Amino acid sequence: MKIAVDAVGGDHFPAHPVQGAIMSLEEDPRLEIILLGPSNIIQEELNKHEYDESRLQIVDAPDIVGMDESPSRAVKTKPNSSIVIGLGLHKKGMCDAFVSAGNTGALMAASMFILGKLEGVNRPTVATYYPTVNGFRLLVDAGANLEVKPESLYQFGIMGEVYARVVMGIAQPRIGLLNVGEEPEKGTEILRDSYNLLSQCDHFIGNVEGRDIMPCKADVFVCDGLVGNLLLKLGESMVGAMQTLFGQSIKRNKITAEEQVTLVKVLSDAMSPFDPDNVGGLPFLGVNGISLVGHGSSSPRAMKNMIRNASRCVAHKLNDKIVASLKQ
Amino acid sequence: MKIAVDAVGGDHFPAHPVQGAIMSLEEDPRLEIILLGPSNIIQEELNKHEYDESRLQIVDAPDIVGMDESPSRAVKTKPNSSIVIGLGLHKKGMCDAFVSAGNTGALMAASMFILGKLEGVNRPTVATYYPTVNGFRLLVDAGANLEVKPESLYQFGIMGEVYARVVMGIAQPRIGLLNVGEEPEKGTEILRDSYNLLSQCDHFIGNVEGRDIMPCKADVFVCDGLVGNLLLKLGESMVGAMQTLFGQSIKRNKITAEEQVTLVKVLSDAMSPFDPDNVGGLPFLGVNGISLVGHGSSSPRAMKNMIRNASRCVAHKLNDKIVASLKQ
Repeated sequence: MKIAVDAVGGDHFPAHPVQGAIMSLEEDPRLEIILLGPSNIIQEELNKHEYDESRLQIVDAPDIVGMDESPSRAVKTKPNSSIVIGLGLHKKGMCDAFVSAGNTGALMAASMFILGKLEGVNRPTVATYYPTVNGFRLLVDAGANLEVKPESLYQFGIMGEVYARVVMGIAQPRIGLLNVGEEPEKGTEILRDSYNLLSQCDHFIGNVEGRDIMPCKADVFVCDGLVGNLLLKLGESMVGAMQTLFGQSIKRNKITAEEQVTLVKVLSDAMSPFDPDNVGGLPFLGVNGISLVGHGSSSPRAMKNMIRNASRCVAHKLNDKIVASLKQ
Repeated sequence: MKIAVDAVGGDHFPAHPVQGAIMSLEEDPRLEIILLGPSNIIQEELNKHEYDESRLQIVDAPDIVGMDESPSRAVKTKPNSSIVIGLGLHKKGMCDAFVSAGNTGALMAASMFILGKLEGVNRPTVATYYPTVNGFRLLVDAGANLEVKPESLYQFGIMGEVYARVVMGIAQPRIGLLNVGEEPEKGTEILRDSYNLLSQCDHFIGNVEGRDIMPCKADVFVCDGLVGNLLLKLGESMVGAMQTLFGQSIKRNKITAEEQVTLVKVLSDAMSPFDPDNVGGLPFLGVNGISLVGHGSSSPRAMKNMIRNASRCVAHKLNDKIVASLKQ
């Protein structure tokens, strides 16, 4: 198993990607890693660490894609970037997957452009992990497709179900369509048509509402990318908001310093399901390859978890299973 | 000032609406209340309380609209319901506002049908209060208009700004358009066109993202009703989810009974901004009258707060100010 890792993606490159890659090698003895980026930068970072050199290779990719660069332009004008070279290696079969904490838009565009679509897929999508009281579940689309047709929402559900089962280890993932009410006739025409299409699928439990996400009433929440992106970012802001609200409450309630220590411990543990480090990257589903993107702020542990998820996609033949599910 | 109150709306009628009405009379000595519903049910409930009879009148409305009834059918087939009679009295000028904790859809339909649209308004809307670290702010549309044109999103912003200023007491409300990124070119064509229209307005601060809601980066968050309804219900589920997550954390961390008491106090106080009782009803904006709808589970205090908000709308001439703002 060989995974290509973007060493110059995200807000903390090359330190976090390089450290995450080394942690992955330690965790999985069968793993090999390709690090992509300007080789001098990578080598300098690697010199700070001890690692199994026989399983880690540098591929020089001198161009760096900025976090705010226009996705389509970055792909076209930077053929020597880690993203374009890494996905190209994957396309040629020289590695099994590509992961990056870089520019999500550029990664989506490059994954689509270089890897192409998987057989039978209408629109590839990006899924995201969403925190619930039972741990992370899947929300799809997370922002790649702002406007979608019913056929695409249907496929998002199918692809999400396979990912949740194969990679997240959820035994019988339930697909729910995010809507303004439970009844089949609720929502827009697109949602009603999507409901009808999804009804063909055994895993579909019907419409679910905004209030059903946190209590984990489904395992795969299907929506368009506008809704998904807004919900995703609201969820991401929750930890900070809770810290502020608790800080305000602690002040109002004159809590002793000792009690505060306990409170902070319980609070941070309670909010741990929201920790993006536990997620390990968002998968592009429906592309003809394995490509994952991590949060720009990915820690070394987040990078390691993303590499592990990519490795699971490969080991469990995610894409073969998606193609088979879409044919049913 | 005379406010008509639906005595048979919500999950706890007639107890909560009746008790809330009596609390309002105690709070505001200039207020008069009309209670609408089957008069025997209301009288029986009133007999349990002491109140100023000179300021409380019953109007018999024998039909009851169920919480799950089809809105349009309820309005057509139940002319003797509290909703239809109450809004009719308001239309005729026999009261200054109508409030109910009943079926939101039926109330929206009846408010539109009976009161009509306010001068210059494209599509009336329902706004909702949304919890932030600085207290409640406004989210509009909350589910009335699932698909909207840019002109409507523009008007939602304008109407929301007036409501936030006049009724919520926010000095210079900032309007933000919910989108997937800050740049004007982000999002769908509808969002880009809405951005351009809203740019005419001094109060518009541009696009805001899902992560900007809780930290209160705007005071009026503008979106379509599908997004608004999903965000609203996600927000409503947050208190329960936090309680569950904290319960799990308390168990894992072996907290003493004494520490638990402090924790529960701090938690419930921290989550108080999410308390729907503090909200006091969601306003229909853009109808030619004052009509507010409360949560089905509204407590007496929530009913009282809704009556107070309705009274503020009347006292501050909300609709005159909306018409003036739309003309600018």
